[in-house]
Amino acid sequence: MRSTTAWQGKENSTSLERATIERRELRADDIAVRVDYCGVCHSDLHSLHGMTGKPVKGLVPGHEFTGTVTAVGSAATTFAPGDRVAVGTIVDSCGVCAMCTVGQENYCLEFPTTTYGGTDRIDGTMTLGGYSREYVVREKFAYGLPAGLDPAAAAPLMCAGITMWEPMRAAGIGAGSKVAIAGLGGLGHLGVKLAVALGAEVTVLSRTADKTADALALGAASLLVTTDDDQLTAAANSFDLILDAISAPHDLEPMLRLLRLDGTLSVVGLPMPTTVPLSVLGRARRNLSSSGTGGTRHTAELLEFCAEQGITADIELLPSGRVDEALARLEAGDVRYRFVLDMADLD
Amino acid sequence: MRSTTAWQGKENSTSLERATIERRELRADDIAVRVDYCGVCHSDLHSLHGMTGKPVKGLVPGHEFTGTVTAVGSAATTFAPGDRVAVGTIVDSCGVCAMCTVGQENYCLEFPTTTYGGTDRIDGTMTLGGYSREYVVREKFAYGLPAGLDPAAAAPLMCAGITMWEPMRAAGIGAGSKVAIAGLGGLGHLGVKLAVALGAEVTVLSRTADKTADALALGAASLLVTTDDDQLTAAANSFDLILDAISAPHDLEPMLRLLRLDGTLSVVGLPMPTTVPLSVLGRARRNLSSSGTGGTRHTAELLEFCAEQGITADIELLPSGRVDEALARLEAGDVRYRFVLDMADLD
Repeated sequence: MRSTTAWQGKENSTSLERATIERRELRADDIAVRVDYCGVCHSDLHSLHGMTGKPVKGLVPGHEFTGTVTAVGSAATTFAPGDRVAVGTIVDSCGVCAMCTVGQENYCLEFPTTTYGGTDRIDGTMTLGGYSREYVVREKFAYGLPAGLDPAAAAPLMCAGITMWEPMRAAGIGAGSKVAIAGLGGLGHLGVKLAVALGAEVTVLSRTADKTADALALGAASLLVTTDDDQLTAAANSFDLILDAISAPHDLEPMLRLLRLDGTLSVVGLPMPTTVPLSVLGRARRNLSSSGTGGTRHTAELLEFCAEQGITADIELLPSGRVDEALARLEAGDVRYRFVLDMADLD
Repeated sequence: MRSTTAWQGKENSTSLERATIERRELRADDIAVRVDYCGVCHSDLHSLHGMTGKPVKGLVPGHEFTGTVTAVGSAATTFAPGDRVAVGTIVDSCGVCAMCTVGQENYCLEFPTTTYGGTDRIDGTMTLGGYSREYVVREKFAYGLPAGLDPAAAAPLMCAGITMWEPMRAAGIGAGSKVAIAGLGGLGHLGVKLAVALGAEVTVLSRTADKTADALALGAASLLVTTDDDQLTAAANSFDLILDAISAPHDLEPMLRLLRLDGTLSVVGLPMPTTVPLSVLGRARRNLSSSGTGGTRHTAELLEFCAEQGITADIELLPSGRVDEALARLEAGDVRYRFVLDMADLD
């Protein structure tokens, strides 16, 4: 076994501790990656808190990271030591089901292996994530990081970015599309940039006008205040796609009313049952959708698109030793727009 | 005013009584239609019972009928006396909003005028439906009945048929599509015929295997028993579109699981809020949709398609004097697949 240093959950506490963890010896199609930068995702918070609010012992979060290849397995052909790579939320899948064969491993019918907290398909161990100095991954689930993309600011593309990208691609967003983004955080701010780059007219939906300048600076055409009935009424039946990246429970009905004929509300920030007014869907043949991150096909496409367009996340870079501070501020909503940890201090 | 005979709701009773009602004198763009055949829709039952379960006095149901033009207004140009026409659920709309201008008057932003129980946009009276011997309608909302379509069996195309047609067209159903239909009644049986004619492979979803022979006779490739976990599991992630025409409250989750990547569950039979597991939507970028009947563009298209394909409803034709019996048997689910009233006995 290989060993590396990581930020790991401990019992009866939500803070992480510096620990030595094991990584597997390289299998034939594995690569070893020195993790340089790892984004801090809201999912990391959820996972550390556990489903019941009890801290999870032994968990190493982190599923959007960039790094440098340090070693390759005997049958690995894509990468060589020194290559810059990026890794996202999925590190393995069955590879043969209808979803995997079209590059949608995120929907693998046998369930994909997640980057942390998952179960390795070969040795059965729990996967440990990117809040660490080294990660060993099947090369199929690593992506060459295009030259010109800042490796720190590119890390959030691998979860926040792809989560917004997939529903936009599924909805065929392009020039002439009208897209709204609700929740201007790590996901939302990348959603604005990506939709604008695809040629859409973008509106940010927010409960107050406070973020108007931020929205316009990201390229949005306008900000719509969702607590203002006049603004809601004026914008009714206007959007092709609304990407709802709000993480707290909220009412979907006002957003559904903003959709035009055959429009789609894609909920990416709220993975829980909710009451949906079918009558509102039926008033304009509207669609309610949800999706989770992305597969290899769209992830590779996203990185290429971001390199062409010069798109990365707006980040606040912290030494990884300040991970507890990052998590606390993320929980308080105090970040513009994504924390990224610099893992060099783990050496 | 003109007068005609109709089956009308009375106070404190769910049965209808034969009554003389008034029709307006023809406006410039109106036509008068002798109603020959009128389908009996589940909505008629709901409307008669009223929202609170109290019978509605004065209501004349009926919003899928065929008939013969008897007179035309001074500016009417489309029809002449003697023409066969069909009328559906909508008889007017604002005509200028974004929905109306694309032929989706069913989603008129000012609300369409329904064929019965609506409010006439000019004189403010309550519209009275097709359970009557004459109807006066703007010619824009009457459709020439193609030669070769039996006028009795074609009547249900105007509500049941178009309700199934619109979501199939919105989803781009054609050769190679896999479509499932839940609820093999007036809507469902037309859904099977239409989807088969569009080239789709069609599966009927039912709680028991009882309707297997019926489903196959209508052209379905198979019937899937939704209470059989093995069958559900085997069919998971397989349908492009599921049309849910079940009128009673039911759980949507088993059907959502049957949708493939980017598939859509279109709920057309249950216009009430329901709890939707977003996590199931998100497991394969699935869509939940709902819609209501159709606009002029799709309705005209449907009639043309049905004429080409020789599609009409499977009906049980009754003299209109037996309307109470038809409504009672419809409520009990005892019809294959649509009652149509022959209005000749109103002369």
